[in-house]
Amino acid sequence: MLKVPKHQVAGHQAIDGKLGPLIDDSGRFYKPLQDAERGTKELTFYKSFSSDTQVPDHIRRFFPVFYGSQLLEASDGSGLLPHLVLQDLTSNCLNPSIMDVKIGSRTWYPEASDNYIQKCLEKDRRTTTVSLGFRIAGLRIYESKESGCWKPGKKEVQSFTADNVRSVLRKFVSSNSSIGSNVNPDCSFASIVYGGSAGILEQLLELKEWFEEQTIYHFHSCSLLILFDRESVLKGRTPVAEVKLIDFAHVVEGKGVIDHNFLGGLCSLIKFVSEVLSNSKESSINTCFLESEKK
Amino acid sequence: MLKVPKHQVAGHQAIDGKLGPLIDDSGRFYKPLQDAERGTKELTFYKSFSSDTQVPDHIRRFFPVFYGSQLLEASDGSGLLPHLVLQDLTSNCLNPSIMDVKIGSRTWYPEASDNYIQKCLEKDRRTTTVSLGFRIAGLRIYESKESGCWKPGKKEVQSFTADNVRSVLRKFVSSNSSIGSNVNPDCSFASIVYGGSAGILEQLLELKEWFEEQTIYHFHSCSLLILFDRESVLKGRTPVAEVKLIDFAHVVEGKGVIDHNFLGGLCSLIKFVSEVLSNSKESSINTCFLESEKK
Repeated sequence: MLKVPKHQVAGHQAIDGKLGPLIDDSGRFYKPLQDAERGTKELTFYKSFSSDTQVPDHIRRFFPVFYGSQLLEASDGSGLLPHLVLQDLTSNCLNPSIMDVKIGSRTWYPEASDNYIQKCLEKDRRTTTVSLGFRIAGLRIYESKESGCWKPGKKEVQSFTADNVRSVLRKFVSSNSSIGSNVNPDCSFASIVYGGSAGILEQLLELKEWFEEQTIYHFHSCSLLILFDRESVLKGRTPVAEVKLIDFAHVVEGKGVIDHNFLGGLCSLIKFVSEVLSNSKESSINTCFLESEKK
Repeated sequence: MLKVPKHQVAGHQAIDGKLGPLIDDSGRFYKPLQDAERGTKELTFYKSFSSDTQVPDHIRRFFPVFYGSQLLEASDGSGLLPHLVLQDLTSNCLNPSIMDVKIGSRTWYPEASDNYIQKCLEKDRRTTTVSLGFRIAGLRIYESKESGCWKPGKKEVQSFTADNVRSVLRKFVSSNSSIGSNVNPDCSFASIVYGGSAGILEQLLELKEWFEEQTIYHFHSCSLLILFDRESVLKGRTPVAEVKLIDFAHVVEGKGVIDHNFLGGLCSLIKFVSEVLSNSKESSINTCFLESEKK
């Protein structure tokens, strides 16, 4: 009954006999516990978080539902392995567009070993993590039935510059963003996906407000998923677009201090998204203006 | 006419024949240009900033007034040296209490050399920079005519933990905070210095709002001074307390990205200050309650 998820954009994948997450038809996502420590830490986080009464409900919706853990046949055939049982975030989507954004201007945490810190630091400097306060870790943009979706390879994603990130955030909400073509992305979905009272920007601002206050958890190397389904958008279904946090193997206690690393990166992402939104508004005003001039 | 400033809490000091800043009686502060590159970079920043029309006036007041540069006899007797001519921020204070807070969870900037980055990183990890998103770099708390002021040494300040920082932020606005004594700081000045519409917290929030938007400058290794004069407070003079940014030798262009490193640290400091404020309100409510119960 278990299958390999079709829409995964980053992380280990259960293909070619490798170890990776699986899904079922009932909307559950089974994530194998990674090497002893990381897996246990993520399980501990989910257990603690799901029973933490300090977390308000409107914030809880940004996290996948946690159903516990379960022993399952691993996807690499290595036998029974404990898996986290989580909500499959794309189970209701036909053709989701997904962006995995790793938040923070550092992915390491103070308590880590020197070796681990140096390894992370090097990657943080090589990618946009240090400069932008976040890096895109993976994405797929659904284009059409004919052209399928654009899913750049790991190497391409890891070499994104600030300008690439700007461009990807525009392509993500465009209907004319075929790869290879030099067409200027039209951002035709920007106002509905990024904007509006239920859009991505509002959700990011809601998260930001919580991060300005919460001192319970520090989310190192955690990703923010941005996802929407083109078909749902066109048919006016809700939710239009969703923000979800995933990957909690490096969450540590906040000890009364806010997660300034996550918050700073989140604010930077908010600025990028709001610029796409305001530029697309301006260009649609200009289009209207030009069209009314033509008459 | 030039003198050594009495109230300096961090940075190079012009004592024992060393090179450091000087002041005059007209309210000006003369800062010698540090080794070629840093000095030139700070001068370049002041020139660019003071003529930058994108900086709103209500933000400009958080920066020392810049009067240009001037060749002066250096305090170490090494001859004529160019000095930045700036506003002396404490010229109107009799006995200022000052805190120098270096903002950001990293003090290095992406373009720096590997050596420089490693040196900064090591210090950032050793101090509260990484854990809190800021570190106290120096302070003096004026106590009274009799006991003078508390000015812990450099080594003590550099070894501050999160709890020390909490305690210092309370002592800073207390009237019973003698060193060595184990008295719980009374935070009697908290509501007037940190709180109120012209207090430190409101000023920090105003700065925060600007940092959420501005993408012109990234302020690496820059300090935020928090200062007030006990006498002025007691006599109800304004301004009650001031926030000023200083030390711009490592400011780089923002290139369209917000300064997420500064912003994150600033939000963390805001959380610390607002906690002192709300705890001191609670304790004064408790005191009132206890006193009304006694009756």
